[in-house]
Amino acid sequence: MSTVSFDPPRAPLDPSTPDLDAEFQHWYADTRSQVLDELTTFLRRVRVAELGTAGVDEVLAQYTLGGKCLRSTFMYLGWLCAAEADLAALRAAASLELLHAFALLQDDVMDDAVLRRGSDAAHLRLSAGYPARPGAASGFGRSAAILLGDMCLVWAEQMLRESGVGSGALARLWPRYDAMRIELAVGQFADLSNDARESPTLETVLGIARAKSGNYTVRRPLELGAALAGATEQTLKALGHYGTRLGEAFQLRDDLLGVFGTASITGKPQDSDLGQRKATSVVVAALDMADVPTRRELSALLNRPELGAMAIGRCRTLITRSGAPERIEAMIADRVRDALRALPDGALGRDQRAALENMALLCTARQL
Amino acid sequence: MSTVSFDPPRAPLDPSTPDLDAEFQHWYADTRSQVLDELTTFLRRVRVAELGTAGVDEVLAQYTLGGKCLRSTFMYLGWLCAAEADLAALRAAASLELLHAFALLQDDVMDDAVLRRGSDAAHLRLSAGYPARPGAASGFGRSAAILLGDMCLVWAEQMLRESGVGSGALARLWPRYDAMRIELAVGQFADLSNDARESPTLETVLGIARAKSGNYTVRRPLELGAALAGATEQTLKALGHYGTRLGEAFQLRDDLLGVFGTASITGKPQDSDLGQRKATSVVVAALDMADVPTRRELSALLNRPELGAMAIGRCRTLITRSGAPERIEAMIADRVRDALRALPDGALGRDQRAALENMALLCTARQL
Repeated sequence: MSTVSFDPPRAPLDPSTPDLDAEFQHWYADTRSQVLDELTTFLRRVRVAELGTAGVDEVLAQYTLGGKCLRSTFMYLGWLCAAEADLAALRAAASLELLHAFALLQDDVMDDAVLRRGSDAAHLRLSAGYPARPGAASGFGRSAAILLGDMCLVWAEQMLRESGVGSGALARLWPRYDAMRIELAVGQFADLSNDARESPTLETVLGIARAKSGNYTVRRPLELGAALAGATEQTLKALGHYGTRLGEAFQLRDDLLGVFGTASITGKPQDSDLGQRKATSVVVAALDMADVPTRRELSALLNRPELGAMAIGRCRTLITRSGAPERIEAMIADRVRDALRALPDGALGRDQRAALENMALLCTARQL
Repeated sequence: MSTVSFDPPRAPLDPSTPDLDAEFQHWYADTRSQVLDELTTFLRRVRVAELGTAGVDEVLAQYTLGGKCLRSTFMYLGWLCAAEADLAALRAAASLELLHAFALLQDDVMDDAVLRRGSDAAHLRLSAGYPARPGAASGFGRSAAILLGDMCLVWAEQMLRESGVGSGALARLWPRYDAMRIELAVGQFADLSNDARESPTLETVLGIARAKSGNYTVRRPLELGAALAGATEQTLKALGHYGTRLGEAFQLRDDLLGVFGTASITGKPQDSDLGQRKATSVVVAALDMADVPTRRELSALLNRPELGAMAIGRCRTLITRSGAPERIEAMIADRVRDALRALPDGALGRDQRAALENMALLCTARQL
């Protein structure tokens, strides 16, 4: 058995957006590094030797170790809002990256995604491991990615349970953890029928985004960490408000990047959101705000059976012309402001408040 | 919100194979009925209202309440080998039906199954709930079935954790439970590349079957129940031996039914195993035992791009001619004998022993 290392490909993260303070940047880099160390140790321990040859180790590294660790950072930050630094709590927080890997692996199959974090998506990589029958390899790759996702879902919970945090703290966590996992699946369920050609309202789209991505990226992780630390109801409530608004802002930024971001920023093909006719906030706002000829042309393009690169470029132009990007930028700024306002004056330490403020900038930055 | 009931469609089970004793039949029927009651109560509690309209409730009832409850019965029987009857333990055991529903939902997508328990498979039923675009409905149904499987995986663990068994007992359980879930996924992973056209050996095929289905149907549930009850190492070991051998026998019977069983017995189309070119024990044994012309003809048929009803009928004739069915029957009988021999003389009560003996007959019976 080869000792595959799960060496973190510690993506060349550059969280140096202008407004982040230096102390925060160090804290964030250190936290992420510890999270990746804990994940690496765990993955080495649970590694299934007989799957190593199928390329599973590399895919696991890509999906668990290659990201920004926003969810684990938020969970640990939730903990720090009510308790001292603690390695077991950090390990518990790190387990969210495995939960996220589960979601990404299965979402990529459902969305027929091509790239993830700049490499081929899991189902494409895994199809290469299929023994002999190229014709069936695609189905094999998709099924293998689903199964690997299932394993990550199991491992996430195992890592959390075995993190070393006390059993009383864990008992407080489980109901929230279960609810978050179901909310995530229900959000993805709603997202499956989310199609720009169905003309959903901006409100519907934001609702789905909140369940699927916003809550699960910011609010729930923060609440999990705070609940684990035994935070007061007041702190939980404040973090909940902050998390809801910031989660929406995060999702709106993601939607803008999905239309205008380059692959080097998103790690995904530039055309994927439009190509898939996803009814993201940007597209829905554009259809809402455009003048009649612009709306008619955009709508006609989105209803074509196939969208080529030129058509997608044209969509981008029409969306820009509608004024939707500025509106979404304004919505992001509003939500970040609301999020920061939700932070209570007395209940948080100086460092915690600064970290929450910086995280708000970090996860809505145009470049990350 | 309609109050969908999850009324168990309590399948018209007829466990009256000639050799089962009447006392056991009553116990089994009662246990299954309690398991279904507990599942129904749990499902009503966790029901996601917004998915009800998508037909999810009916699919959940089909996949969780429509089976023979072998796994939960074995787990509860494991408990009874070391402790008194207990409702919390029964509830913990019932959670295995949700785990099984997870496996069935996702396997049916991966196998492109058409029927499950006599009704359309989940992905086909769920595709009917897709809003407006028939062309995309199949992808929607498949994704929805995967997500429903994920939810069942989460719920299974939640039901187990909230069953009411003591925390010390649960702590003994989790490592076994995690290992079983990973073993199940790894077994399904191996099964994905299991194709009769690749000429696997009987040993390979039995190994996959043991991991994928045998262990997870008999051995692991028994061990989980016994571990939960704090059984001695001796009892655990004996149940492990019994479970391994009986699990193999169960899988061999399943393989025979997959080729020769009728849809009214299996709830699946008669042609599915051969149509999918699954390298089951029956097919591999037939290729192994047949004379040269028979093997050549069978092999040629299995390598056709499509297998129609007539070709499948011919395969069945050739398999019968090879003598494989008798050999598999003999292997089943051997394994049942070994399983019963593994039961220790002193350590088990009279009732427990009788139940294990009867379960061995029940889950290898030709008709059930």
